[in-house]
Amino acid sequence: MTQYKYLLEEDQMPTHWYNILPDMKTPPPPYRHPVTLDLMAPGDLAPVFPQPLIEQEMSPERWIEIPDEVRDVLKMWRPSPLYRAVRWEKALDTPARIYYKWEGVSPPGSHKPNTAVAQAYYGKQEGLEGFATETGAGQWGSALAFATQFFNMKCKVFMVTISFHQKPYRRVMMETWGSDVVPSPSSETNAGRSILEVDPETTGSLGIAISEAIEYAVTHDGWKYSLGSVVNFVMLHQTVVGLEARQQMEMAGDYPDILVGCVGGGSNFAGLFLPFVKDKLDGSKPDMRVINVESTACPSLTRGLYAYDWGDTAKTGPVAKMHTVGHDFIPAPVHAGGLRYHGMAPIICSLMDDGFVEAAAYNQLEIMAAAHSFARAEGHIVAPETAHALKATYDEAIACRESGESKVILFNCSGHGHFDLAAYDAYHRDELVDYELSEKALQEALAKLPEVPPLKE
Amino acid sequence: MTQYKYLLEEDQMPTHWYNILPDMKTPPPPYRHPVTLDLMAPGDLAPVFPQPLIEQEMSPERWIEIPDEVRDVLKMWRPSPLYRAVRWEKALDTPARIYYKWEGVSPPGSHKPNTAVAQAYYGKQEGLEGFATETGAGQWGSALAFATQFFNMKCKVFMVTISFHQKPYRRVMMETWGSDVVPSPSSETNAGRSILEVDPETTGSLGIAISEAIEYAVTHDGWKYSLGSVVNFVMLHQTVVGLEARQQMEMAGDYPDILVGCVGGGSNFAGLFLPFVKDKLDGSKPDMRVINVESTACPSLTRGLYAYDWGDTAKTGPVAKMHTVGHDFIPAPVHAGGLRYHGMAPIICSLMDDGFVEAAAYNQLEIMAAAHSFARAEGHIVAPETAHALKATYDEAIACRESGESKVILFNCSGHGHFDLAAYDAYHRDELVDYELSEKALQEALAKLPEVPPLKE
Repeated sequence: MTQYKYLLEEDQMPTHWYNILPDMKTPPPPYRHPVTLDLMAPGDLAPVFPQPLIEQEMSPERWIEIPDEVRDVLKMWRPSPLYRAVRWEKALDTPARIYYKWEGVSPPGSHKPNTAVAQAYYGKQEGLEGFATETGAGQWGSALAFATQFFNMKCKVFMVTISFHQKPYRRVMMETWGSDVVPSPSSETNAGRSILEVDPETTGSLGIAISEAIEYAVTHDGWKYSLGSVVNFVMLHQTVVGLEARQQMEMAGDYPDILVGCVGGGSNFAGLFLPFVKDKLDGSKPDMRVINVESTACPSLTRGLYAYDWGDTAKTGPVAKMHTVGHDFIPAPVHAGGLRYHGMAPIICSLMDDGFVEAAAYNQLEIMAAAHSFARAEGHIVAPETAHALKATYDEAIACRESGESKVILFNCSGHGHFDLAAYDAYHRDELVDYELSEKALQEALAKLPEVPPLKE
Repeated sequence: MTQYKYLLEEDQMPTHWYNILPDMKTPPPPYRHPVTLDLMAPGDLAPVFPQPLIEQEMSPERWIEIPDEVRDVLKMWRPSPLYRAVRWEKALDTPARIYYKWEGVSPPGSHKPNTAVAQAYYGKQEGLEGFATETGAGQWGSALAFATQFFNMKCKVFMVTISFHQKPYRRVMMETWGSDVVPSPSSETNAGRSILEVDPETTGSLGIAISEAIEYAVTHDGWKYSLGSVVNFVMLHQTVVGLEARQQMEMAGDYPDILVGCVGGGSNFAGLFLPFVKDKLDGSKPDMRVINVESTACPSLTRGLYAYDWGDTAKTGPVAKMHTVGHDFIPAPVHAGGLRYHGMAPIICSLMDDGFVEAAAYNQLEIMAAAHSFARAEGHIVAPETAHALKATYDEAIACRESGESKVILFNCSGHGHFDLAAYDAYHRDELVDYELSEKALQEALAKLPEVPPLKE
């Protein structure tokens, strides 16, 4: 009989994270200071992040040991299963062999706790009392709420006001795990109050929520800020996904010709592909394709610039060289809230600039059609973010049907959609709208990128 | 390091269901006809259920082979993991060793598809076009919607009106898997229309929804009715849970002193305990305790009668000897909608009457406190139904702390609570109400049990 799942035992979980920085052809250029735009000094990040994470951010070590205490929490759901999508292949009548890594088995429902647990561990090691963070749709906030409770840390989540009211179950999940969740903008920070003064009825934005979380962290003793994507140490922590998948693909006797994943800030997909891209960087797998799939509503890789930009709207975080649609660009309210970030992980951007990975963008009508097809065949109802990976996989599988090639496609099935069924409902009722991206709005946002001075010799 | 999960490979999934009927000291007495109250003739059930299921309902075979096509669908998530609740043990400071079988990993989120898949297979074998069924909170309807799509069958779900409006995500889930979901009472059946005529604003009830589903099934060519609990063949299909758990407990090197599960109609817990109770019936494990945990809002085992009663409010289904609070008893609207059934699986009732299993009842304040404690320690947010098993486990674990005994407790963690977070929210806000069961209402309902004539010689 066909085998569907490839499982690993707990003792087969990776003992080390894979750090791609020493293997990159062009490592990401250094961060710049948000105000002076000069090189950031090593101490500049210290008020914001725990020290071990700052060290990991620029570590030259290829393998970094995962602390036992972190592995002990990850074991609650890891190693996650790798599936062969036998029924979907049949439904698509494709000779392609489709595999997916299923990260929806974590209690918060996505890959996000892979880094949240590590950050909570290092925060506790440093003696922190709590972490402040922002969340949009709630996946990241849930993951940090989940993680901090295991290390007896507090967690303060600034949740974008519109989501706070539209997704009450995500809020309740965070509260169940002991976090304090407030709608953002809130009256608890200067950033929040100044917005509320101008517009008391605002629905909020991720940019504002980030500003509030950073302000809360740096103005409270014993608190720091936690971030769920974009930066190097988050990509590092997510490599457990790809390291497990390598072992599981070996069990299946296959190696991916094509890797696919959705990207907002880049964390889930980089987690999967970095341990494979290693083989492309060293020349052993030159033809493997790596497809980063973004939303047409926020197309930083496909229509943005590769340039220095601030990571947040209020310009309080580091300036990084990345693909960006501009730090004050407001994407349309697509269901895939996790893909509405204006920038992209610098590691992914540099790999793309060097030609090792590629990008595609899809709108929410086509991604929900793919999600529906997958749910009918494989049973899993995935998050709208994840559905972007399904659509690119779908297209590659259909291309195989037409060419007759039996390519091996592996995608990251990054999270379930139990809190996103409104998107499925809209799709069934033909009420799902697509959003055109205004070229004028994009150009206006791109005109506001900083002019970064060249590095001094 | 501590091991948390005990996993089985797909080829370790049981090949046969365990049928307890031939091993019982007192098999359940035969069904009676809903109108005449005489013994049901073998053909009486034929318009309602597929023939292979009717045969399984009274099979004398101890082991019944699971068809390959059924195992092939179950493999999408089975074998399910067995967990050692290491962190909860520590939080409760108990010497007890607590294990749980985690059925929340199925795409519909509970143990329910274990029988839904089998029923869909046999329905398709018989050439049926579709199944009609009822659902309250939506767990069973989701499971049947999920199962029927894999066998290209249609599925019509009568969903209790109040849940239809309060739990739209469960409805969308069923629609995603291709089912037609209507609020009950509906205008599509005589049963529904007659209720709506009297009270157009009614919120509906499970009893009415059952009547509509049966009527729909028997009045449509190629359609039959599907039931998610109570009857023997459902208990049979659920034994995959306990058969897997036996293997996994062996891997862990332990054998349960106490088995715990929540019971509404009895399907999840019987699925776990029947393969273990076998050892009690044959005398090899005389001291093992088996605790059926129900809601104080619907206490059929702890305050009902062991007597013949109709399975549905409209008195159209078979009359079975079971613990019951009366076929027209309306339980309080507790969050654990799945425990609001007035009767109980005849197999469980007979085992209890013979002293092999016992029962306990808890109210929704105490079960949600246990669920909260579990979520903080183990990360999993469980359904309110499942939380009843947690509360009994909690009490046994505390008793071990006081007595110093290291008992082994195994409970069935039957489903996740992603669609039940309103219950957690109410608990956090101290807005959760308990419901007193009126002794007068209970006695009135019990006065309506049928007078069943003795069997003719």
